[in-house]
Amino acid sequence: MKRRTIALCALLLAVITSALIFVVEGNDKPYTIKKGMIHFDEPKREAGQTSMLGFAAEPIDTVRIGIIGIGQRGKGPLKRMSFIEGVKIVAICDLHQENLDKGQARLAKYGMPRADEYVGEEAWKQVCQREDIDLIYIVTDWLSHTPMAVYAMEQGKHVAIEVPAATSVAECWQLVDTSERTRRHCMMLENCIYDHFELTALNMAQQGLFGEIIHAEGAYIHALDKFWPLFNDNWRLKFNQEHRGDVYATHGLGPVCFALNIHRGDRMTHLVSMDTDSWVGKELAKKSLGTEEFANGDHTSTLIRTAKGKTIELQHNVYTPRPYNRLYQLTGTKGFANKYPVQGILLEQEKMADSGVVPNHEDLSSHKFLPKEAFDALMEKYRHPIQQELLEYAKKVGGHGGMDFIMDYRLIYCLRHGLPLDQDVYDAAEWSCIGELTAASIEHNSMPVAFPDFTRGEWNKLNGVTFAK
Amino acid sequence: MKRRTIALCALLLAVITSALIFVVEGNDKPYTIKKGMIHFDEPKREAGQTSMLGFAAEPIDTVRIGIIGIGQRGKGPLKRMSFIEGVKIVAICDLHQENLDKGQARLAKYGMPRADEYVGEEAWKQVCQREDIDLIYIVTDWLSHTPMAVYAMEQGKHVAIEVPAATSVAECWQLVDTSERTRRHCMMLENCIYDHFELTALNMAQQGLFGEIIHAEGAYIHALDKFWPLFNDNWRLKFNQEHRGDVYATHGLGPVCFALNIHRGDRMTHLVSMDTDSWVGKELAKKSLGTEEFANGDHTSTLIRTAKGKTIELQHNVYTPRPYNRLYQLTGTKGFANKYPVQGILLEQEKMADSGVVPNHEDLSSHKFLPKEAFDALMEKYRHPIQQELLEYAKKVGGHGGMDFIMDYRLIYCLRHGLPLDQDVYDAAEWSCIGELTAASIEHNSMPVAFPDFTRGEWNKLNGVTFAK
Repeated sequence: MKRRTIALCALLLAVITSALIFVVEGNDKPYTIKKGMIHFDEPKREAGQTSMLGFAAEPIDTVRIGIIGIGQRGKGPLKRMSFIEGVKIVAICDLHQENLDKGQARLAKYGMPRADEYVGEEAWKQVCQREDIDLIYIVTDWLSHTPMAVYAMEQGKHVAIEVPAATSVAECWQLVDTSERTRRHCMMLENCIYDHFELTALNMAQQGLFGEIIHAEGAYIHALDKFWPLFNDNWRLKFNQEHRGDVYATHGLGPVCFALNIHRGDRMTHLVSMDTDSWVGKELAKKSLGTEEFANGDHTSTLIRTAKGKTIELQHNVYTPRPYNRLYQLTGTKGFANKYPVQGILLEQEKMADSGVVPNHEDLSSHKFLPKEAFDALMEKYRHPIQQELLEYAKKVGGHGGMDFIMDYRLIYCLRHGLPLDQDVYDAAEWSCIGELTAASIEHNSMPVAFPDFTRGEWNKLNGVTFAK
Repeated sequence: MKRRTIALCALLLAVITSALIFVVEGNDKPYTIKKGMIHFDEPKREAGQTSMLGFAAEPIDTVRIGIIGIGQRGKGPLKRMSFIEGVKIVAICDLHQENLDKGQARLAKYGMPRADEYVGEEAWKQVCQREDIDLIYIVTDWLSHTPMAVYAMEQGKHVAIEVPAATSVAECWQLVDTSERTRRHCMMLENCIYDHFELTALNMAQQGLFGEIIHAEGAYIHALDKFWPLFNDNWRLKFNQEHRGDVYATHGLGPVCFALNIHRGDRMTHLVSMDTDSWVGKELAKKSLGTEEFANGDHTSTLIRTAKGKTIELQHNVYTPRPYNRLYQLTGTKGFANKYPVQGILLEQEKMADSGVVPNHEDLSSHKFLPKEAFDALMEKYRHPIQQELLEYAKKVGGHGGMDFIMDYRLIYCLRHGLPLDQDVYDAAEWSCIGELTAASIEHNSMPVAFPDFTRGEWNKLNGVTFAK
């Protein structure tokens, strides 16, 4: 009888413990905790979906575009597209008529025909429904990115979405699943992968000049003090007010993921993240939102590990006074590249010889950045083919080779030629999921968080980053 | 009967699970895992021990020193001490007679009397046993630091120990407990807190020019390719070959802990750490040690959080070709300081006015480093009082104001005047424990690790970092 009581007690204890674990670890969360690691739910691929790796659509002779959101950053493509061949801006859409008026004036200024206008909260759906549009270009507040993109793909449109493409892991899956089901492109407009130093360093990396790249850093460090009022109805500050974590990771992460061939031979397996308390953010919230609650830490740091044993460090700080900094740093076994606050490259003697750029050897040291002449010569010699092409193109049609222009040019070029886009839906998902993954880590004292594999096991199928020609 | 079976099964399951957890989480480890966090054992303070916070010993008119290890870095103090008043090097000790010969020549060169010589593996104990020595100055391989320091304190000597003072958490406790029991100083020779930029930035921080410092970074990034052969019998490479983690954290961590008032108003609560695989280290091991096993990752990154909601980032990389970099970066709510790869300071307009250094205001931006003239003026105006004093002193007695000299000068000055030392035994323990804490985190997929509180609850008793006068 005594034994039976003990056994029953043990059973009761087991049940209570399980229940407690269930409650403590949160059954309302989109993840479970196993052996000290947070695992987000990974839905199985539904019937009717197939991988979008390497996906190419039918060529489109003239890419007909509907742009949703032309208030701030949405003004840019109105100008840039005017320098790109084979583009027609069919429709523009915004919450405010004033922005549409300015948009039409801008189109006229750059010699483009007037576009059809759509104004108001739900107007974007009508744009997506039009039969004569190929590409929906989304430049709205973060929270509307995924709903709009999903709807647009369901209407048979390709989509290009400003960063971040999604604000939660569930949204990332929505993008992946919708793209896989509808066979439409879903590209995030991550422009920083097209910046001059990043493209050149990527080219050098692909030629093997840095040896094996083992560690890379990226960041978004940008004191937004003067910029906060520009976001309609304070949406960005409100988002940060409600969310811990690295909510704007893609500018830092995108270029280093390209250098590390993420889901093209390697994959991010897990991360840990840590933030500071909020000081500056709290002050902003007090002044602008009338609250002293502010979730987002002033400085957020994240460490990511990959399947091949490499690491990535990310930082996010849009609050404290600091020089603008995206870090972009590649640490290789044979060389090193660093963009901020000063651009510098260092190559081991052997790789310097390989590079074909031979400066005064007495100036070289494996512990110092290369002298200016050697650096300049490398930057010239290893200019990325895409950037070279764009220099020629710009001479012909105008425009300039800035990263936003290259991004739009490549998007249109690939659509017109029926080529895979430079950035696929898995990039969009991997780079955008950082927000919720880091928040989950931070909310559990920096507990490690496993990355969902958005490719569903196919991360090692492609061999490196390519720009289709 | 069936119920009884179920209950018994539940009991069995509970027992097996507990046993499994016990085995998996490791009962032979010096830590336990609770709720996804690693906790190192924290011994209670024994009877007869009292806190060393703010400890000052009796003044010593002439500080009589025994130096253990004068092979490489141990050569430095032989010269530096010759420029410091009230010092006598009584004994020198080394494994090799050759080093002792060179040491005597060096003493002669700098006008110091010959010292008694001790040679061989166990000779250091005889030095510690001498009645006519006040301070044992330890410049040996890492693994001998704590055993020597503990023995020396037990012989009634103050000790100064090269970095890191200890190689495990248990050794850190040994230093703390021995110092508390014997009432002898135990100072780690962390020189980087005395470097020019660090001291000046600390002074600015203490004047409030950066606002609240919320994030700080430190590192030891130093490609040791040419230095490995200098370590007797390859002890350093062998240590790294056997240890994962940030095994050499103090140069990066010390100066930022001073800026954040660690155990003088704040404390480090937990860390997470992540390393890359080993590439360069493995090659070194193959060449120099005849093994392809190498535990230490080529690049190790660590995030630390404090009780006051601040964060610290640390990096360690002694393998890949990169410019030397200790990071030393302070991110404040009102300003920013950065040492590597270029020195720069940024202050908000309000703090720039407070600083009393008013450059051309049109050149200022809260997003850029201050222009050179403003930077230079700040560095001049906020020169640390200690450094100012040393400039005067150097004019009088020679020597120069480099960080190693300031370190020795301060050590001797405080001992002679019966003052608390700049760095106490808790600094030595906190900065040295990083090695084993990071290894534990890394070995558990970057699981968070709680910091032991070496002050045993007294971390908020002192009010900020001070240099006793």
